[in-house]
Amino acid sequence: MSEYDISETEALGNVLCAYRNYGNYALREYYEPRLAKWEALHPSQRKLIPYYEEFLEMLQAAILHNAKFLRVVTDFAEQMMGIPIGESKVVNRFSMDKVVSMFSQLYREWSPEAQKERNISLDRMLPILRNFSSTEVKADGPLSVLVPGVGTGRMIADMVNEGYFSEGNEYSYHMLVMSMYMLNSGQSKGSLSIYPFIHTNSHWKDRQTMLKQVKIPDFDICAKLSGTNLMRISMGSFVDCFGPNQNIWGSSHYHINQEMQITRLEVQSSKDVVVTNFFIDTSSNILDYLLTIQHVLRPGGLWINFGPLVYHQENEDETDICYEIDQFSGLRTDHKKIPMKGIELTFDEIIEAATKLNFELLQQEDNIISGYGEPPDQNGMPGYRCAFWVMKLRHK
Amino acid sequence: MSEYDISETEALGNVLCAYRNYGNYALREYYEPRLAKWEALHPSQRKLIPYYEEFLEMLQAAILHNAKFLRVVTDFAEQMMGIPIGESKVVNRFSMDKVVSMFSQLYREWSPEAQKERNISLDRMLPILRNFSSTEVKADGPLSVLVPGVGTGRMIADMVNEGYFSEGNEYSYHMLVMSMYMLNSGQSKGSLSIYPFIHTNSHWKDRQTMLKQVKIPDFDICAKLSGTNLMRISMGSFVDCFGPNQNIWGSSHYHINQEMQITRLEVQSSKDVVVTNFFIDTSSNILDYLLTIQHVLRPGGLWINFGPLVYHQENEDETDICYEIDQFSGLRTDHKKIPMKGIELTFDEIIEAATKLNFELLQQEDNIISGYGEPPDQNGMPGYRCAFWVMKLRHK
Repeated sequence: MSEYDISETEALGNVLCAYRNYGNYALREYYEPRLAKWEALHPSQRKLIPYYEEFLEMLQAAILHNAKFLRVVTDFAEQMMGIPIGESKVVNRFSMDKVVSMFSQLYREWSPEAQKERNISLDRMLPILRNFSSTEVKADGPLSVLVPGVGTGRMIADMVNEGYFSEGNEYSYHMLVMSMYMLNSGQSKGSLSIYPFIHTNSHWKDRQTMLKQVKIPDFDICAKLSGTNLMRISMGSFVDCFGPNQNIWGSSHYHINQEMQITRLEVQSSKDVVVTNFFIDTSSNILDYLLTIQHVLRPGGLWINFGPLVYHQENEDETDICYEIDQFSGLRTDHKKIPMKGIELTFDEIIEAATKLNFELLQQEDNIISGYGEPPDQNGMPGYRCAFWVMKLRHK
Repeated sequence: MSEYDISETEALGNVLCAYRNYGNYALREYYEPRLAKWEALHPSQRKLIPYYEEFLEMLQAAILHNAKFLRVVTDFAEQMMGIPIGESKVVNRFSMDKVVSMFSQLYREWSPEAQKERNISLDRMLPILRNFSSTEVKADGPLSVLVPGVGTGRMIADMVNEGYFSEGNEYSYHMLVMSMYMLNSGQSKGSLSIYPFIHTNSHWKDRQTMLKQVKIPDFDICAKLSGTNLMRISMGSFVDCFGPNQNIWGSSHYHINQEMQITRLEVQSSKDVVVTNFFIDTSSNILDYLLTIQHVLRPGGLWINFGPLVYHQENEDETDICYEIDQFSGLRTDHKKIPMKGIELTFDEIIEAATKLNFELLQQEDNIISGYGEPPDQNGMPGYRCAFWVMKLRHK
């Protein structure tokens, strides 16, 4: 049973349970095997790396520090938002790895060190948004921007700082818990500290960067964002919340029922801009995403994309049960099991399909190298080759 | 039971069986789910990508073409080298994925398109080898070069073409079967063709490159290498075959017995040069590798390294049973289970440990971007950040 088959409250509780389990998990996964390896090392080999024992102590302390931070996050979620924690739940590795990845996610979105990396997309997006906003000012308020896959919330914070009404959408409860904390817990500049790099042991030039403590956030969230009504986060799959009511099969992430159909009808043509940032390759079927962007954008609206094409599902063996609703009887017709993988379009093919969906290509750029939470060190992880494009939805 | 706990003949037979299973596996893994996805696609969505059906036909044909190539390889191994094929063996996914990776490996090592990538390391290594060879000419023959992790054999072919006596060492039977075929089956330039890129669906700018057929090898192996006695491949773990007889624990990849001890004694100080090319990060304990390089090099010999630090075992949960032999009784003392992961040194730490082992650093370079079988397309996979260094083993 996936986390999306159970109630939202239960799923959130399970995620908080996984958050709380980080300390034990990380010690077991990252610290203890290394201590065992060090202790069992041939005495003559130990002399070659005498500093390793001290490194292990620092690694342990860093894990405990991270665990303390997550404790504060879960306390906030529990007390301020009323989410009950599923204490006794069995936490699987998949969920734990998502918790671990939260630290590089926080570094990527909220550290001053990663501003340079964030600017690779922002420096391309913001001039276009500013120009669009100034030439297409609406009488009824600020530009309305939708950011699917908003993660821990940074992109909508950036949009709000520009004065736009910003809606983030997120499918992952792990991300949702963290974005609620970051955006709503009244943080000031540098008020939090984490060790984001301790979970990887490859690619290092030296040990110092791996053990670097990072202070987040890089600006005063409390002063800048509190009291604004420009910001919203919706929970659920992008296609489910913002897609059209036709041309998409029902599935675990697209529900055909009256409630969702009304929701989807209401959001039609409601956004001036959709920003997909490291997002489109999360799709099981990217055509569903294209149809959804087409549906939610108003005619004349912009789709701005930045990111690589590393299809998350390309090696996924799972299937999804897909269905239709019979138009006359209203009964659900079970379709067959459809593989999660299978429609991974190339850059050129995405542009071409979008053109058929009434998008006009305004700008495109390929081969932009960008990290994704790359450490502040030239010998860090290799970057992604990203594509950037801007398309305008034609008036019919 | 790992493939290394059974007899060499049986292990080779199992690998041939996996090779023969490629067609079925690749159809099931890469083709069939995509066909199912395409066939189940909403009719309106199909119109957005009408070429997809033809792509799937080409994908199927490419898989069958690759399977035919592997059939020739296994026939050669069976008939010319007398390896019996384990027909009825259950082939696991791990083994099948290694077979699939063979195609990008062949592309990387033997295609004319990848010469540019091979040159990133060769252009650094060859001038040093030529200079070393000309200033340290030995009376008793050509320069003797050892290449651990030789893969399908290209690096030793390059060394032989330079006139050096070249020994490749390889731990993987999957690689060994292919290197035997490439080096010994009398291939001329471009005599073979493969589809190396069909197994990945990410990162593509267009569909053409993914479906590109590549001709290998890029030079006339038969004419250039046959009849030479400059080339050898040894099978086994690098540490087992070339390491010292002390300061390393016994394990599944380092056997403490009379036969191996004699072998290791014989190879001491036997090589002029060790070339580690995309190799050192395969170690479970890189200190074992350093000790082995120190042992097998003659004083004054060179260690040349090129490659990234992407420790293959860093997320491995397995342990290895390690042991010592009691010096007086000669009995095996079981040591404890030691994690495979746990000693992942940084660039700086490797250099420092090598210095303690009597190596002198002659040259170093960091942050060299190189692919590893990158397609001939700027929008391919992101590269690795590689390090290059040259060290000289001091005279004691």
